[in-house]
Amino acid sequence: MSFQAPRSESSPAPRYVQIGSRMAQLIEAGAFKVGQRLPSVRDTAALQGVSLATAMQAFRWLEERGLAQARPKAGYFVQSVRAKMALPHMGQPPVGSVPVAGRSRTELFSMVLSGMGDADEEINLGGTCPRDSSLFDESRVRIALSRAARVHRRTLVQYTGEEGTLAFKNAVARRALHLGCALQPHNVQVTVSCIHAVSLCLQAVTQAGDVVALESPTFFGFLDLLESLNLRVVEIPSHPRTGMSLQALALALQTQPIRAVVAVPTLSNPLGAIMPLAQKKALVQLLAQHEVPLIEDVVFNDLLASDERRRAAKAFDEAGGVMVCGSFSKTLTPGVRLGWVEAGRWREPVASLKRVHGVATTEVLEHALADLLTQSAYEPQMRRLASAMAGRLRQARQLIGQSFPKGTRVSNPVAGYTLWVELPGGLDSMHLYECALAHGIRFGPGRLFSASDRYNHCMRLSFSGGWGAREQQGLCQLGQLASALLRAREA
Amino acid sequence: MSFQAPRSESSPAPRYVQIGSRMAQLIEAGAFKVGQRLPSVRDTAALQGVSLATAMQAFRWLEERGLAQARPKAGYFVQSVRAKMALPHMGQPPVGSVPVAGRSRTELFSMVLSGMGDADEEINLGGTCPRDSSLFDESRVRIALSRAARVHRRTLVQYTGEEGTLAFKNAVARRALHLGCALQPHNVQVTVSCIHAVSLCLQAVTQAGDVVALESPTFFGFLDLLESLNLRVVEIPSHPRTGMSLQALALALQTQPIRAVVAVPTLSNPLGAIMPLAQKKALVQLLAQHEVPLIEDVVFNDLLASDERRRAAKAFDEAGGVMVCGSFSKTLTPGVRLGWVEAGRWREPVASLKRVHGVATTEVLEHALADLLTQSAYEPQMRRLASAMAGRLRQARQLIGQSFPKGTRVSNPVAGYTLWVELPGGLDSMHLYECALAHGIRFGPGRLFSASDRYNHCMRLSFSGGWGAREQQGLCQLGQLASALLRAREA
Repeated sequence: MSFQAPRSESSPAPRYVQIGSRMAQLIEAGAFKVGQRLPSVRDTAALQGVSLATAMQAFRWLEERGLAQARPKAGYFVQSVRAKMALPHMGQPPVGSVPVAGRSRTELFSMVLSGMGDADEEINLGGTCPRDSSLFDESRVRIALSRAARVHRRTLVQYTGEEGTLAFKNAVARRALHLGCALQPHNVQVTVSCIHAVSLCLQAVTQAGDVVALESPTFFGFLDLLESLNLRVVEIPSHPRTGMSLQALALALQTQPIRAVVAVPTLSNPLGAIMPLAQKKALVQLLAQHEVPLIEDVVFNDLLASDERRRAAKAFDEAGGVMVCGSFSKTLTPGVRLGWVEAGRWREPVASLKRVHGVATTEVLEHALADLLTQSAYEPQMRRLASAMAGRLRQARQLIGQSFPKGTRVSNPVAGYTLWVELPGGLDSMHLYECALAHGIRFGPGRLFSASDRYNHCMRLSFSGGWGAREQQGLCQLGQLASALLRAREA
Repeated sequence: MSFQAPRSESSPAPRYVQIGSRMAQLIEAGAFKVGQRLPSVRDTAALQGVSLATAMQAFRWLEERGLAQARPKAGYFVQSVRAKMALPHMGQPPVGSVPVAGRSRTELFSMVLSGMGDADEEINLGGTCPRDSSLFDESRVRIALSRAARVHRRTLVQYTGEEGTLAFKNAVARRALHLGCALQPHNVQVTVSCIHAVSLCLQAVTQAGDVVALESPTFFGFLDLLESLNLRVVEIPSHPRTGMSLQALALALQTQPIRAVVAVPTLSNPLGAIMPLAQKKALVQLLAQHEVPLIEDVVFNDLLASDERRRAAKAFDEAGGVMVCGSFSKTLTPGVRLGWVEAGRWREPVASLKRVHGVATTEVLEHALADLLTQSAYEPQMRRLASAMAGRLRQARQLIGQSFPKGTRVSNPVAGYTLWVELPGGLDSMHLYECALAHGIRFGPGRLFSASDRYNHCMRLSFSGGWGAREQQGLCQLGQLASALLRAREA
């Protein structure tokens, strides 16, 4: 395992990545021990002949990777070396498009989901909806809402305009600058969630029977959408670190009548992969060439510390072929449900679908969220959340390494809520699921994340619920159950 | 014109209707003059040998019809006799189902709608969305929202459960008692608007190409939905007072493969018709017999003063064949967008559609609305709103009688926001629309309300915007324009 900086094909890594990865190699080589203080930002800047800002970026790069931790007024300390577990394998290229076979997946989904409410009784490593309210700033949201209700009181007794308030659209456009996108506020459309935005985009560009390409493994919500709209799916294998294989996608575009691609190029779900910038650009160009729209989900981008890593594929869109969808309920406030879409060339059909199906939004919420998005507290809050989650993912990987059977593989995302685990020895995660359920432990069995049976030996673990001794013990217990099942198989 | 009580086929009118209609006849005959005080509720009760409650109901019946007006602590006064204009004709029975021909209607709709924002510059008699915020109680809504944000602060940073909060569902179920419906709160599903609820219901029971029956004329939003879902429409003629013709519907059910009926049996839009109770019951029975679901829209029911008149067709549903859809943005607070549906036998598919397409709601809004719905101020507020609107409709009818060409026919609803006008002498309302637009006046041309060309000589006027000297002059100007166009035709 190495900490080489990811290189784009065309240009060398930025200076901060070079500095960060050199320090990472030193940590890996044992030159800095866990818990030891790293050189100060100031010293590093002087030593490397870079600005303080660049040196700071290098430390954040380390922090994102879970190698360094900032302690207030004391500097950066070595966090830990990552557990040395192999990454999951990439899936096989698709043989063709398949319908989304609903029934069994839907039942499975309901099962996994049905445990979401009773967090007190169960250990739920299933859903990615943030369920741990300690991760968010409740009082800030409440104050923003009360202020919006006071300042924009007239909106409480007026019908929402068709497309949402300018205040919210402006705020979204400002945030989108951090994704490298210069969106026109009037082209931003307000939706009730990110998945609602994706639904509108799919409806705007497809008809029943059409073929859509998805990352594989993929967020099960996308599969549910495709099923509901009677669309077929082509599953494009994705690398656990760099995301969707463009080679496989290019091949699929030549052999399948693909009408749209839905992807999460930055912190995909469940893998947590991040496409390198050059690959994001190539993705947009490839699809433009084939005149196939890209529906891009950017809900997790803000969990990354640098604007460069956050950059969306949409940033490379010159012809309006990318429909970019987002929301803030995974990052800022899970309880205020609003999303947005900039639908490129499909602005009008998306607006029409939203209007016709009566999916209205409530203006006072838009004002409250616009307020929160433009506060200076936003970035520190993202860093707190990202750092808390990075810590959980790191601990979870260590526990998995200690308790799961030998040969278990696990993803190693720099941020996000989930890990993707590949079980060894032909273990079926559905079998493990049933055993675990008897112990009050839930997770996402691999078959939820595909329309075919390619991930029956995989599972998604999510750490967006509580994360204390109980959950950690539950995770170890899960690993012991898996080990016991494997022993029983081999006996 | 007579003020006979509407009789159901099976039973005599209730006592309060008998008393009310006798007083109406006396007013019509001139026994009570406009502005004169009517006998007190107490005297009436004693004189007629009925309870105070029944006498009060009789006065409310008169009030609903715009014949009496309550003045605080002074009693009821004669309001006016209605303008003696004939009702519009009923449409012709359908010859078969037709697709909803979109393009021209959509463009027309955008035209009509595009004026909604600039109320200062234009006189907009087009949309039915309440745009006059003076009709609603802004401070009550603001206080409820701030309270909900305080009391239910944790919901601000927690994902909404899949189906909404129990508080809101309980409140909806309590309100539904006033519609004669005993709904189980857990069967109530939260949506983001009433039309969103109707959309979910249609998607749950139809597939592309299916035939759906609608009232004719109908709310254009239903036609837009059908078009978007690739459904065909059968337009069932509706009487301006008693609503959808069951005879015509029965015939259509025999000759067409109808998969669903969408109707507004109480205060239909644009006619303002109210189906008599016996007819509502017969409608439900007829559809149950043919195993065709009824999608019932009850957004306007609360504008009626008595629970009997408010009663929904759903009240007669024994087999779960009626899907009832509502919201409170037409009555309580236009700025808080939430709706609801009790989908009878189709509970599961509706829940699944809502979940899959990511149409989430925001819990704090549900708590605020639940609070407002259960306050004792709710009913007085409904009566104030209904009385204000009844006054506007009455004045508008008088102005139409004075300014529109002879032979103009106009609906005479007891409540609601709109009048339906039939122009004489082959006048085309689209032609009038274009002339009126040059004078900064907008309304809803008849062809918006049908998928065929059957209402080109009709128009809908809405009075949910402002209603002052400017609007009243605008209405008269519209009548004069129509008269001028007619003279030009005849010359």
